[in-house]
Amino acid sequence: MRQRGHGGNLAWAAAIAGCPQDLILDFSASISPLGPPHSSLTAISSHMGYIKHYPDPNYTELRLALSQYHQLDPEWILPGNGSAELLTYVGREFAKFAATALITPAFGDYYRALAAYDAKVLEFPFSLARQNHAKEEGNREDMEKVSFTQPLSSLPLNDFALSSRHGLLLNNPHNPTGKLWSRQAILPYLKKLPLVVVDEAFMDFLPPDQEQSLIGMVEKYPNLVILRSLTKFYSMAGLRLGYAIAHPDYLSRWDRWRDPWSVNSLAVAAAIAALKDKNFQRQTWEWLAPTREQLFRDLVSLPGLEPLPGSANFLLVRSQHSVIQLQERLLKEHHILIRNCKSFPELGDNYFRVAVLNEKNNQRLIKVLSLVLENQIIEIP
Amino acid sequence: MRQRGHGGNLAWAAAIAGCPQDLILDFSASISPLGPPHSSLTAISSHMGYIKHYPDPNYTELRLALSQYHQLDPEWILPGNGSAELLTYVGREFAKFAATALITPAFGDYYRALAAYDAKVLEFPFSLARQNHAKEEGNREDMEKVSFTQPLSSLPLNDFALSSRHGLLLNNPHNPTGKLWSRQAILPYLKKLPLVVVDEAFMDFLPPDQEQSLIGMVEKYPNLVILRSLTKFYSMAGLRLGYAIAHPDYLSRWDRWRDPWSVNSLAVAAAIAALKDKNFQRQTWEWLAPTREQLFRDLVSLPGLEPLPGSANFLLVRSQHSVIQLQERLLKEHHILIRNCKSFPELGDNYFRVAVLNEKNNQRLIKVLSLVLENQIIEIP
Repeated sequence: MRQRGHGGNLAWAAAIAGCPQDLILDFSASISPLGPPHSSLTAISSHMGYIKHYPDPNYTELRLALSQYHQLDPEWILPGNGSAELLTYVGREFAKFAATALITPAFGDYYRALAAYDAKVLEFPFSLARQNHAKEEGNREDMEKVSFTQPLSSLPLNDFALSSRHGLLLNNPHNPTGKLWSRQAILPYLKKLPLVVVDEAFMDFLPPDQEQSLIGMVEKYPNLVILRSLTKFYSMAGLRLGYAIAHPDYLSRWDRWRDPWSVNSLAVAAAIAALKDKNFQRQTWEWLAPTREQLFRDLVSLPGLEPLPGSANFLLVRSQHSVIQLQERLLKEHHILIRNCKSFPELGDNYFRVAVLNEKNNQRLIKVLSLVLENQIIEIP
Repeated sequence: MRQRGHGGNLAWAAAIAGCPQDLILDFSASISPLGPPHSSLTAISSHMGYIKHYPDPNYTELRLALSQYHQLDPEWILPGNGSAELLTYVGREFAKFAATALITPAFGDYYRALAAYDAKVLEFPFSLARQNHAKEEGNREDMEKVSFTQPLSSLPLNDFALSSRHGLLLNNPHNPTGKLWSRQAILPYLKKLPLVVVDEAFMDFLPPDQEQSLIGMVEKYPNLVILRSLTKFYSMAGLRLGYAIAHPDYLSRWDRWRDPWSVNSLAVAAAIAALKDKNFQRQTWEWLAPTREQLFRDLVSLPGLEPLPGSANFLLVRSQHSVIQLQERLLKEHHILIRNCKSFPELGDNYFRVAVLNEKNNQRLIKVLSLVLENQIIEIP
């Protein structure tokens, strides 16, 4: 049935690698290696008795926990079965407009959600050539000039092509580049367009003093919708939990477009525990920045690879070698899964994406990449 | 936000009862008291490592387990986040027709799913007066004449009102009456109407020699869709797991209408274990028939109550007393939750529904009902 281009398809990877799924070292899904938090696992175990019962259709407790976390009224929050579920309703909203602006390369599931309701797409390319490739900038001693979390001050949109008949769907930080846009970069579009949806699936990886979330602006802009995910930061992709933050008019409409129990009870329990786990949050922020920088330096040092500095828990890497072949060799010979970029047509066979995992596994990746790249691969002509 | 009329809303009930949710004895949700099976709980515990990863977007393993269970090609099976998720896509399909026939009283979520896509409804009342009320039939010695699982041979539809411009959505067994229709009763509509959706959420409660499932007919009728649930028979309502059985053209379209990971990994693990648990299935069939009959007899013996014989794991009961008041007293004074029928407008304040629970709890219900009914309640004028 589906052969999705998304990362984390371990069933597919295991079939190629010829090994059980749990032997695959997965760099393809951008999921934190620190989770799931113990607090969430404990909450799941202690809520096994809840399996028997229907979830609370109002998700009162979960919405309260989210509302405390974001200091926002619960009426402005709607939990979903992963943010991917909520993205589908976003697609239905966008179908009302002449077209929806996407910055490309764009997350493949955006096209799926827009196509589900025949919403038209207007693409605006984000030139990667202009994004600091460390190697292009000079030598490796320039590393101190590389900034991972400095927000960009403008969106790569053509303002003349956009009017009140258009919506805008973007992610911040951007996937797959990891680039962060400043609040100010998005603000003009909130004033101009009838609907702006910002997918902040990776925003929680930025510490509070660096994040650029628009959550603080929802009460001012009824045309702003923010999507958030708990599955990446807390490593709970299998549990399915995301949420939307938006004007209650949107949320109550979406709630009528779906069944009353879309979030499962164990996800609810795990999420409530995770949101309160300040230690886990702090540890993640402390871990990410130096580990990402080390992985970046190590990738820069490999022949034919150029990582882009990014603010999220993954790095996009330009490769002079065929990524499809590289991916296949890593998988078959080393049971390591990287994310090819076939689902981003603009990137094609020249880029791959890797999650930042723990130091030991990152080093394994570097060692294996180095081995495979030395034992040469066919160069793209 | 939502104050749904569906059973099992324990958060709402606990607020009325003024006690914690786990002290409520819940007869309102039609969920088996025997589950979840130990095999499913064990599977959940041993798959906690899967939480971290995205589910397989093809759900290959789960579809294989379902295909073995039903002896059907996996391409004809689509798992969903509860059958309620799949019902939403059914609603979208029905919106293409002039109207969709519903037999009323009808499950409230049918109206929700049809309204989500502005599908029109054509209602056909199912007269409860004609359904064996044991008391009306004579005295209690006539009990041996009562049949719980004898299928009815015709649907309460007006054939002149239905044409190729209409769809049909029904549940079999019917909720809330528990009445079962024979395959032959539905067959003429498969030949006449462009889409027939049979919600068999409670069919698995009938043993193999009594069930009237249409699963065996899907390959012959591409206009037939069957919805099934694992949450009632296996007591996993909190995990969310249902599936559709239909022509692959329907299923692949629905798969494009939603995100790639709608079923969570722990539900997948629990379901695969449950489907293989032949002991649990046999025990359920052995438990249900005599326990339901005993509960029925006990209800018949109470003043002003008339249960309807039904084939599922619940009984609909006609009451000469106000059910709203009865429900409130049971909840406040005894922490027992029965299902009022406000969400079935045709039934109003004269009916309630109770799940068949284990013998001890059923007896507690009878004892408490008897107490409350003696300590009189205001009669409906």
